[in-house]
Amino acid sequence: MTTRRTFIKQTGVLGTLSILPFTNSPGNVQESAPVKPGSRWSDGSRLIVSISMQFESGGQPDNAESPFPQNIEKGFKDLPAETWYQYGYKEGIPRMLDNWDRLGIKVTSHMVGSAVLNNPQLAKEIVERGHEAAAHGMNWSKQYNLPYEEEKKFIQDGVDAIMQSTGFRPVGYNANWLRRGENTLNILQELGFRYHIDDLSRDEPFIIKVKNEDFAVIPYTLRCNDIQLIAGEHYSTDQFVRQVKMEFDQLYQEAETKRRQLSISFHDRIGGTPQMVNATEQIIRYMQQHKGVSFKRKDEIADLIFKDETAIRE
Amino acid sequence: MTTRRTFIKQTGVLGTLSILPFTNSPGNVQESAPVKPGSRWSDGSRLIVSISMQFESGGQPDNAESPFPQNIEKGFKDLPAETWYQYGYKEGIPRMLDNWDRLGIKVTSHMVGSAVLNNPQLAKEIVERGHEAAAHGMNWSKQYNLPYEEEKKFIQDGVDAIMQSTGFRPVGYNANWLRRGENTLNILQELGFRYHIDDLSRDEPFIIKVKNEDFAVIPYTLRCNDIQLIAGEHYSTDQFVRQVKMEFDQLYQEAETKRRQLSISFHDRIGGTPQMVNATEQIIRYMQQHKGVSFKRKDEIADLIFKDETAIRE
Amino acid sequence: MTTRRTFIKQTGVLGTLSILPFTNSPGNVQESAPVKPGSRWSDGSRLIVSISMQFESGGQPDNAESPFPQNIEKGFKDLPAETWYQYGYKEGIPRMLDNWDRLGIKVTSHMVGSAVLNNPQLAKEIVERGHEAAAHGMNWSKQYNLPYEEEKKFIQDGVDAIMQSTGFRPVGYNANWLRRGENTLNILQELGFRYHIDDLSRDEPFIIKVKNEDFAVIPYTLRCNDIQLIAGEHYSTDQFVRQVKMEFDQLYQEAETKRRQLSISFHDRIGGTPQMVNATEQIIRYMQQHKGVSFKRKDEIADLIFKDETAIRE
Amino acid sequence: MTTRRTFIKQTGVLGTLSILPFTNSPGNVQESAPVKPGSRWSDGSRLIVSISMQFESGGQPDNAESPFPQNIEKGFKDLPAETWYQYGYKEGIPRMLDNWDRLGIKVTSHMVGSAVLNNPQLAKEIVERGHEAAAHGMNWSKQYNLPYEEEKKFIQDGVDAIMQSTGFRPVGYNANWLRRGENTLNILQELGFRYHIDDLSRDEPFIIKVKNEDFAVIPYTLRCNDIQLIAGEHYSTDQFVRQVKMEFDQLYQEAETKRRQLSISFHDRIGGTPQMVNATEQIIRYMQQHKGVSFKRKDEIADLIFKDETAIRE
Repeated sequence: MTTRRTFIKQTGVLGTLSILPFTNSPGNVQESAPVKPGSRWSDGSRLIVSISMQFESGGQPDNAESPFPQNIEKGFKDLPAETWYQYGYKEGIPRMLDNWDRLGIKVTSHMVGSAVLNNPQLAKEIVERGHEAAAHGMNWSKQYNLPYEEEKKFIQDGVDAIMQSTGFRPVGYNANWLRRGENTLNILQELGFRYHIDDLSRDEPFIIKVKNEDFAVIPYTLRCNDIQLIAGEHYSTDQFVRQVKMEFDQLYQEAETKRRQLSISFHDRIGGTPQMVNATEQIIRYMQQHKGVSFKRKDEIADLIFKDETAIRE
Repeated sequence: MTTRRTFIKQTGVLGTLSILPFTNSPGNVQESAPVKPGSRWSDGSRLIVSISMQFESGGQPDNAESPFPQNIEKGFKDLPAETWYQYGYKEGIPRMLDNWDRLGIKVTSHMVGSAVLNNPQLAKEIVERGHEAAAHGMNWSKQYNLPYEEEKKFIQDGVDAIMQSTGFRPVGYNANWLRRGENTLNILQELGFRYHIDDLSRDEPFIIKVKNEDFAVIPYTLRCNDIQLIAGEHYSTDQFVRQVKMEFDQLYQEAETKRRQLSISFHDRIGGTPQMVNATEQIIRYMQQHKGVSFKRKDEIADLIFKDETAIRE
Repeated sequence: MTTRRTFIKQTGVLGTLSILPFTNSPGNVQESAPVKPGSRWSDGSRLIVSISMQFESGGQPDNAESPFPQNIEKGFKDLPAETWYQYGYKEGIPRMLDNWDRLGIKVTSHMVGSAVLNNPQLAKEIVERGHEAAAHGMNWSKQYNLPYEEEKKFIQDGVDAIMQSTGFRPVGYNANWLRRGENTLNILQELGFRYHIDDLSRDEPFIIKVKNEDFAVIPYTLRCNDIQLIAGEHYSTDQFVRQVKMEFDQLYQEAETKRRQLSISFHDRIGGTPQMVNATEQIIRYMQQHKGVSFKRKDEIADLIFKDETAIRE
Repeated sequence: MTTRRTFIKQTGVLGTLSILPFTNSPGNVQESAPVKPGSRWSDGSRLIVSISMQFESGGQPDNAESPFPQNIEKGFKDLPAETWYQYGYKEGIPRMLDNWDRLGIKVTSHMVGSAVLNNPQLAKEIVERGHEAAAHGMNWSKQYNLPYEEEKKFIQDGVDAIMQSTGFRPVGYNANWLRRGENTLNILQELGFRYHIDDLSRDEPFIIKVKNEDFAVIPYTLRCNDIQLIAGEHYSTDQFVRQVKMEFDQLYQEAETKRRQLSISFHDRIGGTPQMVNATEQIIRYMQQHKGVSFKRKDEIADLIFKDETAIRE
């Protein structure tokens, strides 16, 4: 069906097709390939690509930010903006799910609780098709300003929504606009989370101590993120392709001697458009032409980093 | 599956291939080609392209939004902005009409009543050259906040302007910035409309019930829309070309197994510039190289979807 | 001196080298070439390109708009913004003048009176090198809200500054941001002007009546204008190249059967940067490859249109 | 080590490989090559490229400007924005330092005092690897509105931070957003500085008198500056590449007969991303293909211009 061409790029490492791009299977840890000399990832990957597919639509508040002029009179619902959000679950997520299957990769989907409850079948399908369900709050409210117990309920409610709809227990967290508060990490630790992504400080995951226990940080980016580039900075989709490829080329080079992770983020109503799914396919197929590139869910990355004695600890 | 490229570059010259790009004739339903196995459109089209040419200029209020600095003192008319709008009907629409002829396609023109009354001859010419006249309100005012009867008059006045100038009775509606109100669909139904476009939720038309009767939704987009991309997001015209082509490529692929519609929207003063008409020609000729692509007016799409038993019903 | 390559582009019109691109000489009317059949310009040009090189820097008010954050405390001069404006006359205009010489073309320079008085030698050089000096107000103030006599003095002071520094008597006018008032055209007529450019409504010049006498409108554009695209819409310089070429290609086609004018505008501190002068050279050399393209000062265009019986009259 | 390909571009100057691109060594004045006839730089360079690598992160105030929505409640720290800044010194500067080594060039790093104190080891490494440490204020506060003695302390504190961490005594200054005050140059002179960069008026350095003594101005640009183009104007990284190359091409041409300098500026958290370091490498390798291009620290440029009798004096 699809053309999956794998070219060997000679990057100083002699190779044959013995190490294939890693595919992810739901729930199973990929059986480890023999560790390559010089490889910085303990599973032998040269560069790990972490893709996010955020599921938020259907859970947004009334009159949430949208491309529409905000001059709507008080008391009236913004009907066109509602339809713009509906696109996220009617077309966007389904299209992206088909694209991940076509490309043979698994992703992490941070799901807002209210979006999950609005579309439990879709949330379940995301998990059934092999992707990770991670938490993204109960709704779009701010959490950083809540007292401890309220913030804990806010997070737990979102977790419950995911669990009851998908059967998957989230171990990773993403706050709205990355804006966690002073208590958030403690709460996550308490609730059994293993990692969070609300950190832009590095191009590789690292371990921190939360209440004296290891907790993983799987960093996020804005510069390879559709809500920042397409919605916020008005990039055309071809600009997105070129910029992410430039990011990849540089990280792939660095990955010869350093542990490197490339993070790309898509949001249902933005990354799920035909033009953006086309862009995404171009980017991923380009990356798949390079030896040693693997696509992992963030829970799998967390597993790897926890077991890695060379991991950065802050 | 396969790359299906069939070159037909015809600018009025007969072609040799058995399935020609569908041209539209005003008023007539295209005689149906034999239904292709797997075709999702009942007329055998693989992908339907719906183009809008909005006719608004000449009907704008004083000091309407424009590229000009808004710091104009109270009591003074914005003379340069007026000339910017005049371009819409002096150069923009005429240039676009010539382009549709050159490309052999028909479009839907949502016409604001006050723009029509300002230029009845131009409105009439749009219809005489085979395009659909659809309604777009009487003027640029908000309608979503009007009481039922006032909103009904607002819509009807716009319909009357179109009918008296063109002889064409509109069956489709587009609200200013898609912003309909709670009563709009009921009013449209009452006034005999058959479809509206103020919905961004899908990439194919669908049927809803309005007062228990079927009503069609022919979805619109912002991401292939000149007022959003060129005027709002400051794309250069070449970005517009690449982005719409990327949209097309993906929808064309999906159209092998799903009913798919590509919507592109132009506004008189924006899409009618030389650089944008050039962009449009590039896009359409690219699409016309692909087998099974047809360009339809929205009233024709509504006809198709009403008769389609497999249509999505919400 | 310059390399002037003229390629014949087969666009359906067979041609020979009998009609060369016209060069402009200061003051002289180009001796007319034999009128080509179908040519819409009375001098046989196929497409006329009108380039503006606005000279404003050095005349701006304190704390004029600039790329600098505007949060400067009251009572302090914006020193870096001053240096940004200085670039306009220290580097910008000189670089553009060299470029026009290299390309063998003449342009129209709308000069703000205060900028001229700040740099009379530069203003004089612009004229000595063959370009037209046109008026652009005495300073950057608004004029549309002034009483008749004040607005007349505002315009006349700017004219006097130009005449005393350059010896050239301006016959054309450009208001700040095109924002003329209700009296402006009457005043211009009274002061002996022959044309103004503050009109975006057409892609060809036209004649209007001002106090019953013919007055020419040489239209301007924002969409091929560096202050709009580069400064306002944040285009990169390569986007500017592609967009103006797309504009040219379409107008060149239309010019086979219609009178067409392409307007491109540059402002000292924006169009005069190395990257923009490079962009400009690319654009103009591209246009110069096409037969029948001539570059004219606006006073020359006004001359042509006044004598043209087929000119549009509004 | 690095692939250093030097192509000879015949630009009218016959040449062999006798004059190589100049590399810079810390502290040493490059032994002068024989002066080329027509060369406008006294060391024989055709075009000098001045690169800035600004080191600011870690020294920013709470809730400093960032890509994050600014609607954060009073009293709360912006934790995600903090991580965005951390990227500047955890990944950005280290990546850029590796890139300069790979390309064999030296740059000027304007360092904010508070950033230096937060990361003295990194500041020291910048100097040890051959780059110039220049001053950029003690912190991100405004200085233009301070009384003389306070502004002097503000500058001196920043100088002290650099000296105690790196051992390097800064001789060049850059104010926050170029915004110096009426006293700044006098203060710099008094404190022993030799040049400042807060001037956009020329494409070559020049000499001014400050309290009757020579002081150099090494001009800066916004149009080849990552904080302006990437952060402010939302360019994609490929646009940055094309625009700077266009700037280079034009200045390289002009440099045949004029003294020309190309200034490019990078800021830790912006220019240090993988996509931007990739962009930078593309640009610099392109420039290195041209004969007579040298990359110099600004203190070296100041040395050159002070000794140049043909320097512009204002």
